[in-house]
Amino acid sequence: MKTKLPPSGMRDFLPGEKAIREEVIGMIRQVYAGFGFEEIETSVLENIENLVGDDGGENTKLIYQVLKRGEKLDLKGAKTALDVVDLGLRFDLTLPLVRFYSNNRNALPTIFKALQVGTVFRAERPQKGRFRAFTQCDVDIIGDPSNFAEIEVISTVSDALKSLGLRHFKVKINDRRIIKAIVKEAGFPDSAFVDIAITMDKEDKVGDQGVLDELLQKGYDLDLVKSFLQKTRQVQEKGLEAIRPICPEAYDNLSEIIGVVEALREGYTIEFDYSLVRGMGYYTGTIFEVAYGDLGYSIAGGGRYDDMIKAFSGNDIPAIGFSIGFERIMGLVLEERLKTSKPRKLALIFDGEVPEGVVGAMMRASELRREGKVVALYKKKNKLGKQIKKLEEDGYEVTVLT
Amino acid sequence: MKTKLPPSGMRDFLPGEKAIREEVIGMIRQVYAGFGFEEIETSVLENIENLVGDDGGENTKLIYQVLKRGEKLDLKGAKTALDVVDLGLRFDLTLPLVRFYSNNRNALPTIFKALQVGTVFRAERPQKGRFRAFTQCDVDIIGDPSNFAEIEVISTVSDALKSLGLRHFKVKINDRRIIKAIVKEAGFPDSAFVDIAITMDKEDKVGDQGVLDELLQKGYDLDLVKSFLQKTRQVQEKGLEAIRPICPEAYDNLSEIIGVVEALREGYTIEFDYSLVRGMGYYTGTIFEVAYGDLGYSIAGGGRYDDMIKAFSGNDIPAIGFSIGFERIMGLVLEERLKTSKPRKLALIFDGEVPEGVVGAMMRASELRREGKVVALYKKKNKLGKQIKKLEEDGYEVTVLT
Repeated sequence: MKTKLPPSGMRDFLPGEKAIREEVIGMIRQVYAGFGFEEIETSVLENIENLVGDDGGENTKLIYQVLKRGEKLDLKGAKTALDVVDLGLRFDLTLPLVRFYSNNRNALPTIFKALQVGTVFRAERPQKGRFRAFTQCDVDIIGDPSNFAEIEVISTVSDALKSLGLRHFKVKINDRRIIKAIVKEAGFPDSAFVDIAITMDKEDKVGDQGVLDELLQKGYDLDLVKSFLQKTRQVQEKGLEAIRPICPEAYDNLSEIIGVVEALREGYTIEFDYSLVRGMGYYTGTIFEVAYGDLGYSIAGGGRYDDMIKAFSGNDIPAIGFSIGFERIMGLVLEERLKTSKPRKLALIFDGEVPEGVVGAMMRASELRREGKVVALYKKKNKLGKQIKKLEEDGYEVTVLT
Repeated sequence: MKTKLPPSGMRDFLPGEKAIREEVIGMIRQVYAGFGFEEIETSVLENIENLVGDDGGENTKLIYQVLKRGEKLDLKGAKTALDVVDLGLRFDLTLPLVRFYSNNRNALPTIFKALQVGTVFRAERPQKGRFRAFTQCDVDIIGDPSNFAEIEVISTVSDALKSLGLRHFKVKINDRRIIKAIVKEAGFPDSAFVDIAITMDKEDKVGDQGVLDELLQKGYDLDLVKSFLQKTRQVQEKGLEAIRPICPEAYDNLSEIIGVVEALREGYTIEFDYSLVRGMGYYTGTIFEVAYGDLGYSIAGGGRYDDMIKAFSGNDIPAIGFSIGFERIMGLVLEERLKTSKPRKLALIFDGEVPEGVVGAMMRASELRREGKVVALYKKKNKLGKQIKKLEEDGYEVTVLT
């Protein structure tokens, strides 16, 4: 049975929405490029071995996997899903970037500033405002261990958001090493960190009690969990100063970044947020998100993933990224402001019964296009008045050629 | 095992190539839009039922199929591949457009002129110049039964190719109804047409003998096959005039189109080609391709697919499309010509040891960006001379801030 709708959680875009999307993407690209980020593109499909793993946190469970083809497919002998697939659709732009960088390192600058705009795919339970295919607009800096990289990506993404007319957003910032230190101080083994961080990430939705419940459900000791939550509460109350004794390197890092951004920022704020975790397992240090008004979700997010390239290619190279959730800002961008710069749309109606009518009309249209105008041609219909009215409704300025 | 390369037959694009690709796509888009085509975007994934069928000819065999997820996946109970998949990656932009149009018809103009730029996926045996993921740039006109639609898409695609600096290309044109008439005259049943057309499509590669061999192999009667080939040879020798008695409506159609395009064309030629078939099963009338120099493949192709929307939604609506094979023209486009319009790239080197160094540099960079310049910032290294040299090699004009 053929279905007219796109697959569940996926979308088509009609001309009006598509034009605005392209315009917004163009504006983000321009700001990113102005900061010296260079655009690359990676394959939409990745070898499945690259995608499956614990680096992407819970997102790896949401991979669209592609069936093997031809003789490689052995459906009868298959024990698990992984036996019948060899490719998967990317679930973010970071993992493909790491693979890309590992493969092309020699052809890239020592400090490589990458710009990416692309669709990613996650088989999530569809819900309002969440899609299974969505666009991300990322900047990444590979090869800079200093927190100047943090300052740069925060400035870049903030400027991009401001170029879209967004103001009064809040950059929330944290350092994974703080939670790591608290996890350790509470008495958990180091290996538990990623798992606990994934639970902690839900804190703003489920509260302290929800975090407690999930950690117990995961089999962690009640005393350790309580000690962990007590320490996070201390940080919550005292703010960044409480970090200094627990994790001095994270304290220095965050103080420096916040200090510089405070001196530069215009139209937005930056704030330490102890509860910020981020879903991805691959973050190692600074992490950040952008909150806007009372939206229940962030409109941008990112962080430092210093160990990821090493895990991929053996080279110990630091990296950091910041990504705008494009779908989430589209709703915020005022459509009206974007409609103003559209080129003039002309419709020429010609007499299709006269052979030279077509040729003459095409030539006239060519002249007008050379002047930068959008020109659509239509054969004259019997009901000319109705035809003109319809075209005018579709936004055309109509001329009838004689 | 993680692999650094993209999957077989797929590609990543480094900054230099990506910039040129975006520039070329921008030029094509601009010409298409100038003719009044409006850009839409459809989902990369389609429900598998929409993709599997005989409409896409041999291409439906090349679909990347996506494994069902969660409880829907029953690997043990599966008999065929179709039991374990529910989605597939689109193999062209035409079938998704037909689905899109069927779903959104009421929101679209009576004659809808669609522009699409997108990646499509075909699991072909990789070979030189052929990729498994590639970009197509399509124009389609839905709702115009007259051959003015043919003239428009030919003019549009020709202008787009010319805007890229391509000249002296040849538009080959044919009408599927001619082969259909010959198939019928030779004594084959009507139902054999698509199957015979698929074989005939290989004629330019395998010759008459190859076509004969494949048709016999497919089980067709030797006498009928010989009669068919004899008739096609007659058309080959006499040209368009030989069509008039066999298929007068195709004769009129092609004469009119060629007549008007001959009057308009500049820098390219148009020519009737009896052997042109096109791979897709869905074409019903006029078909065309663009040949360039002695390239062994076409750089653009398309045709009329009047029955496709009816098969999809029951509405009898004519449609026609023309698609530029973007990967095929990229090699032809002179890189040099495109490099000239790049914005000026500046690198500012600042002293990272002085706290106000960062802030001052970021502010200076902001000013320069407001003037439209691309500005990348770098912390001063110990070996400043080496740092400057490397940046200059990467194409930057370097300033050291003091």
